Amino acid sequence: MSREFAFIDSLRSVATSPAARDLIDDVAVLEVAGRWLALSHDMIVEGVHFLPDDAPADIAWKLVAVNLSDLAAKGARPLGVLLGYMLGEAAWDAAFVAGLKNALDNFGLALLGGDTVSAPAGNARAFGLTAIGEAAGPVPSRAGAKPGHSLWVTGTIGDAGAGLRIARGELEGAEMLPRRYRRPEPRLDAGLALAPLASAMMDVSDGLLIDAARLASASEAAIEIDLSCVPLSRALIGACGEDRGATLAAATAGDDYELLFTLPPDREATVRTLSAAGCPPTRIGTVREGDGLTLSEGGKAVPLPASLGYQHD
Amino acid sequence: MSREFAFIDSLRSVATSPAARDLIDDVAVLEVAGRWLALSHDMIVEGVHFLPDDAPADIAWKLVAVNLSDLAAKGARPLGVLLGYMLGEAAWDAAFVAGLKNALDNFGLALLGGDTVSAPAGNARAFGLTAIGEAAGPVPSRAGAKPGHSLWVTGTIGDAGAGLRIARGELEGAEMLPRRYRRPEPRLDAGLALAPLASAMMDVSDGLLIDAARLASASEAAIEIDLSCVPLSRALIGACGEDRGATLAAATAGDDYELLFTLPPDREATVRTLSAAGCPPTRIGTVREGDGLTLSEGGKAVPLPASLGYQHD
Repeated sequence: MSREFAFIDSLRSVATSPAARDLIDDVAVLEVAGRWLALSHDMIVEGVHFLPDDAPADIAWKLVAVNLSDLAAKGARPLGVLLGYMLGEAAWDAAFVAGLKNALDNFGLALLGGDTVSAPAGNARAFGLTAIGEAAGPVPSRAGAKPGHSLWVTGTIGDAGAGLRIARGELEGAEMLPRRYRRPEPRLDAGLALAPLASAMMDVSDGLLIDAARLASASEAAIEIDLSCVPLSRALIGACGEDRGATLAAATAGDDYELLFTLPPDREATVRTLSAAGCPPTRIGTVREGDGLTLSEGGKAVPLPASLGYQHD
Repeated sequence: MSREFAFIDSLRSVATSPAARDLIDDVAVLEVAGRWLALSHDMIVEGVHFLPDDAPADIAWKLVAVNLSDLAAKGARPLGVLLGYMLGEAAWDAAFVAGLKNALDNFGLALLGGDTVSAPAGNARAFGLTAIGEAAGPVPSRAGAKPGHSLWVTGTIGDAGAGLRIARGELEGAEMLPRRYRRPEPRLDAGLALAPLASAMMDVSDGLLIDAARLASASEAAIEIDLSCVPLSRALIGACGEDRGATLAAATAGDDYELLFTLPPDREATVRTLSAAGCPPTRIGTVREGDGLTLSEGGKAVPLPASLGYQHD
């Protein structure tokens, strides 16, 4: 067990409320007066989640977007955010605030409050963001997938991973790819539309394969993904091709912030009518009896890659 | 203007929701379905808010207690907390979790969720806590004090400040004093009882005088405090005496986590009947026309000390 998972396991004795969802979901879901509040908190650390020379406005955007992606995965409409901010150099901080304003304006959100602290000189900085949202109805967990349900994902997979390689100078490709890495778009409208239909839903943050394996584990079921169905953008195919190696690279890269969900058979037709939105969903697999993740391509089994995605240490 | 206040000022352009209360209140107050949610977020940093050799269980307690104190000051009942945790050494982390469990059990609360991150080796660690509460009715701000209202504080002032000096070996005194520093008790019951009565309310975290000056500023009124009325505990008097110097030291020390509030004249009798609780309120001053803080003792003016309390850098 990784250090992080061992620590989270030790926290389960403290997280005894049903609202905590056993700490396996993307958010806490708290009932207040018959309404469902979705609460997400993410922390990012310099040198771990961002680099000192990343643009402050991009860091602000990402901090907001990754929290909103957690809300999107539960069909929650965001109401506002609280910021925990560690002060740095004044010009950097001003650029961060401008980026935060841009991000919040883009999502129609306001900053509600938070805290500002100093840190010892030379310390790697850390920021936290809490997002509060309200779900329109029952909130899908990761645990509701049943054998016979189909597995779907919104949008395209792997763009942000290729974008990071382009940003590092390791690859050449369309500007859309690094933009998807720097400025992820949480799938809020898709989440609202899908939440009443999905039997399980989560966002793809660490890689399609590892997140699908987590959904399978939470649902105590097996999932089979057909690699030939994994949706790749034209920009990604242009930069990396679309053979099995390119598809596996896309399916194990992180930072997609697409929605991964399962559907009972009678709801597939309804979801196909949603395809008009900017990030149409694609059927990529099937839930079966058993446990774990398997891959196929054109009906033939494909071995799992050594790494399914980003593993927290 | 300090760096922190300059930064918070720049955030006001982003905090345009009425729920943000212009970032001058202890919490955000969000209306959901006719109910009032109070949202607080505090961040603590190693070397700034705690020291590496402080007991992990005390740090966990304080992180919970200071957030709940913000809710108490708004008459909100806590519903749960989210934790942002930076991993450290495994035994330290386990002691923190045990302390967190103890603190949350003590307040009848559950951990709802949060995030766990790693940090570069040797980095000062930072933790964040978001507390979510629900207020029974309208939530007092810092801005409602009017000329003719009286100023009150719960419990006793200066115990934690003396306790810190005892913990540092600079003073001798009763064990109650360092306990009040290490294990502050948020005044949740008093806050619930006082919120419908108070015209303004906040918690005392940086020192009675500086926090009273902030209340005066937010209310656009003057406040006069009678030093001879500032409530001191027997333990504090035993350790430090009760002359003017000792009273000023108590009134400018931080970490009290008592409630400071103002009352219209017709509500004083009701508040006196609340005195049976563990932290009875004491009338310590008066709100007048004008601005700023003045001190008196036995009817005579007393000059303000050079420092009114803890100033954020």
